[in-house]
Amino acid sequence: MRSLMLWVAYDGTDFVGWQVQPNGPSIQSELEKAWKKLTSEEIRITGSGRTDSGVHAMGQVASVQTETKLDLFRILRGLNALLPAQISVSNVGLVDGSFHAIADAEGKTYRYDIQFGKASSPFSVNKAWFVPRDLDVEEMKRAAKELIGEKDFASFQAAGSPRNSTIRNVQNLSIRDWSEGGFDRVQIEISANGFLYNMVRNIVGTLVEVGKGRWKAEDVQQIVLAKNRKSSGPTAPACGLMLWEVFYPKVQILEKAIG
Amino acid sequence: MRSLMLWVAYDGTDFVGWQVQPNGPSIQSELEKAWKKLTSEEIRITGSGRTDSGVHAMGQVASVQTETKLDLFRILRGLNALLPAQISVSNVGLVDGSFHAIADAEGKTYRYDIQFGKASSPFSVNKAWFVPRDLDVEEMKRAAKELIGEKDFASFQAAGSPRNSTIRNVQNLSIRDWSEGGFDRVQIEISANGFLYNMVRNIVGTLVEVGKGRWKAEDVQQIVLAKNRKSSGPTAPACGLMLWEVFYPKVQILEKAIG
Repeated sequence: MRSLMLWVAYDGTDFVGWQVQPNGPSIQSELEKAWKKLTSEEIRITGSGRTDSGVHAMGQVASVQTETKLDLFRILRGLNALLPAQISVSNVGLVDGSFHAIADAEGKTYRYDIQFGKASSPFSVNKAWFVPRDLDVEEMKRAAKELIGEKDFASFQAAGSPRNSTIRNVQNLSIRDWSEGGFDRVQIEISANGFLYNMVRNIVGTLVEVGKGRWKAEDVQQIVLAKNRKSSGPTAPACGLMLWEVFYPKVQILEKAIG
Repeated sequence: MRSLMLWVAYDGTDFVGWQVQPNGPSIQSELEKAWKKLTSEEIRITGSGRTDSGVHAMGQVASVQTETKLDLFRILRGLNALLPAQISVSNVGLVDGSFHAIADAEGKTYRYDIQFGKASSPFSVNKAWFVPRDLDVEEMKRAAKELIGEKDFASFQAAGSPRNSTIRNVQNLSIRDWSEGGFDRVQIEISANGFLYNMVRNIVGTLVEVGKGRWKAEDVQQIVLAKNRKSSGPTAPACGLMLWEVFYPKVQILEKAIG
């Protein structure tokens, strides 16, 4: 039995999300189907976390326990030949010992793309949240600083989530903005040791309210202290969210298909 | 009669190109249809140049001669409300005197996106040329220098093009490369005072042959001197090409819808 790590990129637009669902194709079901065609094994492919319908990933990581004798590069090439164009395995790694994509993850980075202003870019369709007005990005950057560090993020957890600890350590929350072909763009990058359900989308929804002038950076400090979902902003739409990277500092990779 | 300048961005994937064609929807036909719905005027909207089927644009420019009394921002908002999501008017300008998008253009910038390596990114589908192998990007950069300046670009003109002057001035040809989520990317940017038919795609096809090791930078010098389409590389696919900007240094813009 070998323990493999798959790095998976996907455009989530046409899928019901990562997890197998009865109501349509998921990233997980497409991967498991391709795996079965390639190896004849009917197995579970476990992702580092579920992504919701419409959410994208550049560096989702999945774990596989397999008996296949195919070498890593043939697995990569074989899966990519069988997967739809919206899903791609960017690398395959052989892990020392047993690897579990959820249990071994020690942190993640998400990116959230916003396009704002009076005209919407055709290249942002299904890839960014279009906010049809000006945003005060400098104030959003000031507010973002209030969310960095080990804090109770209960105000940013989806209502009705299970009651475990809501303390997370946001190691980085940076905002960059630029103009591209006359279209205004903002990208919010958040790294943390873990995320509550909808935490990134609720943080982004709150920061956009700051950008609209409803709140100041100081109000965001109060929103955190309230520890109540009702105090924060709306949930930003799924299409702007991308799981960028998952961190496994303690996992020892013996060999990779590429590089 | 007012003379207007429209800046148009589009994802060309689902269109037959800029120009009105009998075999499917074009950017021009969609714009003229939206214009008619907005103003009741049945007019020609002239682009700075045709783009082929599947080619994209960030800063295509079109000229319109109109009797409409709608202000510039209402024209922008009205057209965008009527156009499909893959086409967007990013700005509208009022020009002093008569403006013609082809006759007044003094140069253009195109960008061409390549993704290469052992795995293809889902985010490059229909947006970049996927080359399934390694490329020597440093040698491509050396070769690009052979194409800068006022030269006879006959070797890069589509076979069977009308026989006018094939001399053009390439003011800039720069290549940048980076890795994104484990996927290797190259972007080639070319600015010139004018372009022969398929010139950018033929230059890119030639530079990719250099990247594959078939030719060295010095061979590209010989290809230019041959003045023969047969001496250069294949035509790169349409999907990687984007008309980035059109230059009108002498056109005086009196007013803009945005900014």
